[in-house]
Amino acid sequence: MRDVTAVQQLAARARIAARHLAGLTRERKDQALHAMADRLISRQTEIIAANARDVAAATAAGTPTGTVDRLTLTESRVADLGAALRHLAALPDPIGEVTRGWTCPNGLRIREVRVPLGVIGMIYEARPNVTVDAAGLCLKSGNAALLRGSSSALATNEALVAVMREALTDCGIPADAVALVVGDGHDAVGQLMRERGLVDVLIPRGGASLIARIVSESRVPVIETGVGNCHVYVDQQVDLDQAVAIVVNAKAQRPSVCNAAETLLIHAAVIDQAGPVLMSALAAAGVCIHGDERIRPFALAAGARFEPVTDEDWAAEYYSLDLAVGVVDSLTAAIDHIARWGTGHTEAILTTSLPAAEQFIAGVDAAAIMVNASTRFTDGGEFGFGAEIGISTQRLHARGPMGLTELTTSTFIVQGEGHVRA
Amino acid sequence: MRDVTAVQQLAARARIAARHLAGLTRERKDQALHAMADRLISRQTEIIAANARDVAAATAAGTPTGTVDRLTLTESRVADLGAALRHLAALPDPIGEVTRGWTCPNGLRIREVRVPLGVIGMIYEARPNVTVDAAGLCLKSGNAALLRGSSSALATNEALVAVMREALTDCGIPADAVALVVGDGHDAVGQLMRERGLVDVLIPRGGASLIARIVSESRVPVIETGVGNCHVYVDQQVDLDQAVAIVVNAKAQRPSVCNAAETLLIHAAVIDQAGPVLMSALAAAGVCIHGDERIRPFALAAGARFEPVTDEDWAAEYYSLDLAVGVVDSLTAAIDHIARWGTGHTEAILTTSLPAAEQFIAGVDAAAIMVNASTRFTDGGEFGFGAEIGISTQRLHARGPMGLTELTTSTFIVQGEGHVRA
Repeated sequence: MRDVTAVQQLAARARIAARHLAGLTRERKDQALHAMADRLISRQTEIIAANARDVAAATAAGTPTGTVDRLTLTESRVADLGAALRHLAALPDPIGEVTRGWTCPNGLRIREVRVPLGVIGMIYEARPNVTVDAAGLCLKSGNAALLRGSSSALATNEALVAVMREALTDCGIPADAVALVVGDGHDAVGQLMRERGLVDVLIPRGGASLIARIVSESRVPVIETGVGNCHVYVDQQVDLDQAVAIVVNAKAQRPSVCNAAETLLIHAAVIDQAGPVLMSALAAAGVCIHGDERIRPFALAAGARFEPVTDEDWAAEYYSLDLAVGVVDSLTAAIDHIARWGTGHTEAILTTSLPAAEQFIAGVDAAAIMVNASTRFTDGGEFGFGAEIGISTQRLHARGPMGLTELTTSTFIVQGEGHVRA
Repeated sequence: MRDVTAVQQLAARARIAARHLAGLTRERKDQALHAMADRLISRQTEIIAANARDVAAATAAGTPTGTVDRLTLTESRVADLGAALRHLAALPDPIGEVTRGWTCPNGLRIREVRVPLGVIGMIYEARPNVTVDAAGLCLKSGNAALLRGSSSALATNEALVAVMREALTDCGIPADAVALVVGDGHDAVGQLMRERGLVDVLIPRGGASLIARIVSESRVPVIETGVGNCHVYVDQQVDLDQAVAIVVNAKAQRPSVCNAAETLLIHAAVIDQAGPVLMSALAAAGVCIHGDERIRPFALAAGARFEPVTDEDWAAEYYSLDLAVGVVDSLTAAIDHIARWGTGHTEAILTTSLPAAEQFIAGVDAAAIMVNASTRFTDGGEFGFGAEIGISTQRLHARGPMGLTELTTSTFIVQGEGHVRA
């Protein structure tokens, strides 16, 4: 365990490295990304051995199988980590992009240019791929990365970060551009949250309680990610075949992620047609229905598991094969329900009615609104961003999937010929 | 004095109003801006009478003349407030702008659309024009405004807000779209800072200590504004006539504002030519030089007031006719000085050398970088934004002058035809 000043020292060194990174050409950054990938592969035996220690400890501690699986590195997974870095190298560099520019009436020429945010602190759980992805995304966007992973992945993260830092040094880039924040969990995270001025932004990725703590305690600006109570609303005018496919996909294709659906709302006018087919399909997918009185007969007739819905269900992000289901008397009632219970992540309407789609788009407030598409599409990869550091559910700075451009800020460059203000 | 829950109630009502505002057409908003302007004029007698009570109390309390002047409303100043609202009505509406859009390989059509931030809390000092400007900027951008002005302007602000709320009601817009946060200063501000979820962003405008308190205590995201320790660097290759004009303008044209220069750095190679003319011009403008040993003889020869410079001077935002002055041995030394002491607001280089300009742009980290222009140009009006809510000196969300578009966030609208994720 290090004392808290170690975090400050780390952040101060990252800030110096960030100044260096801001001036690197794309060529130099891409070279470093390839060097990091090369070295992850050439040192994979050592990395996998370190990981095996974490996995053994997690298994001995009775960690759930799914968590252990996400923690585990194999040769094939290390190859994937390297491939992700090479993929980043192939993406355009956001730095230096002129996002707008104009000439003022007095002749001053102004342009707004993308520059790095500076030092980015990532706080996340036991997923070694986040260590490599975040380091790569930060490097490509010219930012220094302070990585705070779960202590249960400490040996793995130490090995991964050591190897990436060696690659940076080989390329003449300060190793402090990528650093692991170690030490007692609560203290180290607490210290990171206090380093306003040294750390430019914190991005927490993980459970709701981790994110809530950071949001409420941090003095460093935070980008909230990935809290998703996503709704699918089935309108009275709807293509039922499409609706069945989308509802099942949104709920069951990968229930453990933030863009999976947690609540289904069905217009009362279509319940006699939609109820049987939706409940059958969800029952077949193994979904437990937490439903209101009006959906109950359809759920029971379809042989679905059924529980009466509560306010806790309307608020729940299950991340499991559970779904809150309600029948609403109007599109407005659906919008009001979403306004009350939604978390502003992704909300979907399934309809063939253009006015209904437009009313939903105008009335719902969320990072992403889907029309006749699964909520699962709210994703940097699906959006074509090439890579994603998280999905912002806040309103400031970035909203929705965040790629490389969301890791930048801007500078106004103003050129005159002796201009003074009158 | 209200108890703290009154602030919560106000914020909750503002949130409901914000949902209504988000759906208004530009036409409706512009109509309301004109109605507000009309009513400010027609009710000016009452407004000026209320203001006279604040002015009398401020004068009796021995408030500095400049502060009392900024607090004072006259018929002509009320007319200016109305004109500012009409000017906002003439600006384009940022809401609904499609900032990007594309079709994915699978046929999904994605567009990113500007939407309002929601509820904006403004915390500011005894300037009645901020009450009207902020209400107008928020309304035009579809946001509800919670206005917390100085208690020394309370009667004025109550009169202004009452009149604007009446105009909103006349236009069929919820009056709660514009509300004044009254009550005990510390408590009311503290309560605003805790209302994460009800208030989307706080924008403090005022002294450094006010901003520092809000930045360190607020749970609501904050946009820092207006802390400016701006530097002007005179390079060794320079047009001296331009340099003299710009340095005097940057320091003395309006010393009390955040984009005024506070430090002058001069390259040693040009000091024998630049020293005499710069010091003479600054002395003539009544500027007190806080200088290093190398500038001292030039300052004294020019008859300037002179004090030896200290670290406090390098850090100072004087907002007065004081200027820290140093001689540097290189452009790199100037960049390092700015990195150490700057606040990231505006930094200027005066040079005829293209490589020097490029090195300065690449090496300096600030919201705005001026090349051969006065620091005073960092301003929403000068930039052509039409209106300004403040100048952000932070990196997240907005950096530099903030106009209407900076008061927005975005929603991704994704349209499919039954798309599900594989």
